[in-house]
Amino acid sequence: MAVTAEEVLATYDSLAEIEAEFDDVETEIIRHQYTLSKDLYVKRAQIVAKIEHFWPLVFEQAPMDIDEFIQPSDSQIILGALKSIDVKRFEIDTPVEGGDPRSVSIRFEFEENDHFENKVLEKKFWWRHGKDGFVGYVSEPVDIKWKAGKDLTNGLLSLAKAAWEEEKATPKKEGKEKKELTPKQKELKEKLEAEATGAESFFCFFGYIGERVSAEENIEALKKEAEDRKKRQAGEEVEDDDEEMKEDENEEDWEDEEDLDIFPQGDTVAMAIADDLWPNALKYFTQAQESDDLSDDEDDESEDDEEEEDGDKPNKKHKACAHGCKH
Amino acid sequence: MAVTAEEVLATYDSLAEIEAEFDDVETEIIRHQYTLSKDLYVKRAQIVAKIEHFWPLVFEQAPMDIDEFIQPSDSQIILGALKSIDVKRFEIDTPVEGGDPRSVSIRFEFEENDHFENKVLEKKFWWRHGKDGFVGYVSEPVDIKWKAGKDLTNGLLSLAKAAWEEEKATPKKEGKEKKELTPKQKELKEKLEAEATGAESFFCFFGYIGERVSAEENIEALKKEAEDRKKRQAGEEVEDDDEEMKEDENEEDWEDEEDLDIFPQGDTVAMAIADDLWPNALKYFTQAQESDDLSDDEDDESEDDEEEEDGDKPNKKHKACAHGCKH
Repeated sequence: MAVTAEEVLATYDSLAEIEAEFDDVETEIIRHQYTLSKDLYVKRAQIVAKIEHFWPLVFEQAPMDIDEFIQPSDSQIILGALKSIDVKRFEIDTPVEGGDPRSVSIRFEFEENDHFENKVLEKKFWWRHGKDGFVGYVSEPVDIKWKAGKDLTNGLLSLAKAAWEEEKATPKKEGKEKKELTPKQKELKEKLEAEATGAESFFCFFGYIGERVSAEENIEALKKEAEDRKKRQAGEEVEDDDEEMKEDENEEDWEDEEDLDIFPQGDTVAMAIADDLWPNALKYFTQAQESDDLSDDEDDESEDDEEEEDGDKPNKKHKACAHGCKH
Repeated sequence: MAVTAEEVLATYDSLAEIEAEFDDVETEIIRHQYTLSKDLYVKRAQIVAKIEHFWPLVFEQAPMDIDEFIQPSDSQIILGALKSIDVKRFEIDTPVEGGDPRSVSIRFEFEENDHFENKVLEKKFWWRHGKDGFVGYVSEPVDIKWKAGKDLTNGLLSLAKAAWEEEKATPKKEGKEKKELTPKQKELKEKLEAEATGAESFFCFFGYIGERVSAEENIEALKKEAEDRKKRQAGEEVEDDDEEMKEDENEEDWEDEEDLDIFPQGDTVAMAIADDLWPNALKYFTQAQESDDLSDDEDDESEDDEEEEDGDKPNKKHKACAHGCKH
C-alpha cells in the first residue's frame, strides 16, 4: 500500500507544476463564469425579490456545511428578517495587484428586526497565499449592532472585533515573541475557553479571520511561487526543506490563531455560500417548495433520489454536494 | 412563511427562463473547462502512472457520495488492482444531435486480479431530457466477467444486464400495459426483493440504468423545451397542466424502473467521480499522504480544518463537498 517518500519526491516537481497549471485553468474558469453570469444574477435578484421569503426558504434548504452552524435562534432571525443575499467577486470587479477571482464578498440584507440595528451585513473573504505555503480565505471581523440584551453571540463578536483592532494596532513582533497575545486577545481566548459550547450562533461567522496574511505578504508569496515554478520548469532545485521548516515553525502559530477565531470554519461556510447556496439558490428554492409535498425526503438519500421530481433533476449535478451533505 | 401558489405562478415563467439561461452558461463553462484542461489530464495521467497505488490511494479518500457504496470486499479489489481511472466527456469529443457536455464515460483499468477477467470496465452516462420533464443521467448495464465463485454482485449485475437486453428486445407497449415486466425483469425484481441488503457491492454501479430516455426522446424533448422557451420569451402561455399530467402518469413508471435498478444512485456516484474525485485526484492523493501523518483527522471536521496543511488548502474550495460529506 505504502508509497515511499522517494517515489513521491521523484515526481513531486511535476505534480506541483501540473497542479499549478490546473489552478491557472480554474482561475480562468471562475473569471469566465462570473463574467457570463453576472447579468443573470442581477436579473435573478429582480425576479426573486417578487417572491416572498425567497431567501429564507433557500436558507432552510442550506447544505450541511452551512446548516450545521445555524442555531434555532439564528434561523428565527434568518427566516423572519433575511431580505436578500448578494455575492460579488470583488477582485474581478476591481482588479488589484495579487487579487484573485476567488475573493468574494457576501452581503446579507435584513428587514427591521428586534435583534440588531444593521440593515446590511457584508463580509469580505480575500483569497491569499502566505509565505509559509498557505492558500485560502482570510477575512476581517464585521461587528453587529445588537439591540439591548439581544446579542446572540453573547459579546463574542464585538470582542473578536476589538481584539482584531488591537492586534492590527500592535506592531507584529518577530520570532518566538510573536505568539504573545494582546490584552483583548487574552480576554477573547479566556472567554472562548470558558464559554465555547460548540453551539455558537451562526452570526459568529462575521467574526472569522483565518490566517494572518496581509495583501503585501500575498504579493510576496505569489512572486516566490512564480519563481519556484520557473525553477521547476527549468528543472532547477526548489528548496522544499526551507519551505517545510517555515510550515512547521508556523504550525503552532496557526493553532494560536485558530484558538482566537470565534468561527474557525468561516472559510468553509463562505465557500458553501459563494459556490453552492448562491449559484444554486433557484434549485434550493424549488427543493423548499417540494419538501412541503414530499414527506421526510431529507432523511434518506435513496428515498430522496427516488421521490425527486423532475423540477429537481436538472439540478442533481449542482446538488451533488447538498445531497451528500444532508446525511 | 408560506409562499402562495399565486406568488410563485406569477413569476414562474421568468424563473424558468432565467434557469434556462443559467443552464446555457453552465453548458458553455463545462465545455470551456473540458477544452482547457484536456491536455492537462493527459499529462497528469503520465505523471501519476509513475506513482505506485496512486488511484487506490485517491479512492481511499473518496468523498462520501462514493465511499458509502464501497464494501470491504470491494475496496480489497480497488486497493489491490485498480490501475487507473479516466473520465471523458464523449459528447464534446464527438458531438451528436442532442448531445450534452455533461455526458461522461468513466473508464476503470484493472490489473490482473482474482475476481474478474476484465482489464477495463467502462460505463457511459448520457445526460438526457425526457418528454416528462426529467433531466439527468441515463446509462446501460455493463457486465463483468467474474471468475468462478468470485461474483461480488452475486449474479445481480449479469441478471440486470440480461433483463436490460430483454427489455430492449421487447416492443415498448403504451398506456397501462407498459408497466408489464418481462420474465427477466420479474426475476430481477424478485431477486432484489429477496436478497437486497442495502450493502450491495460497489460493482453494482456498472448495472445502473436510470430513467428510460432514448436518444430520440431526448431530441424530441429538447425541441419541445426550446419551443416552450420561445413561447415564454414571447409571453405566450405554456401548458404546464399537460406537462404535469405527463409527470403524474409517469411517476409510478419511474418507481418501477427504480425497483429494477440494482444501483439507483448510479447517477449520483457518476457525478461524484466525474466532478469531484477525477478533477481533484491530486488533492485527494495529497490528503492520503497527510492522513498517514494526521491521526483521526477524518472523524472531526473542525479538527480536520485546524490540522489541515497548506498543501491541502488551495483545494478547500474543491473539497467543500468532500469535507461536508465526510460526516
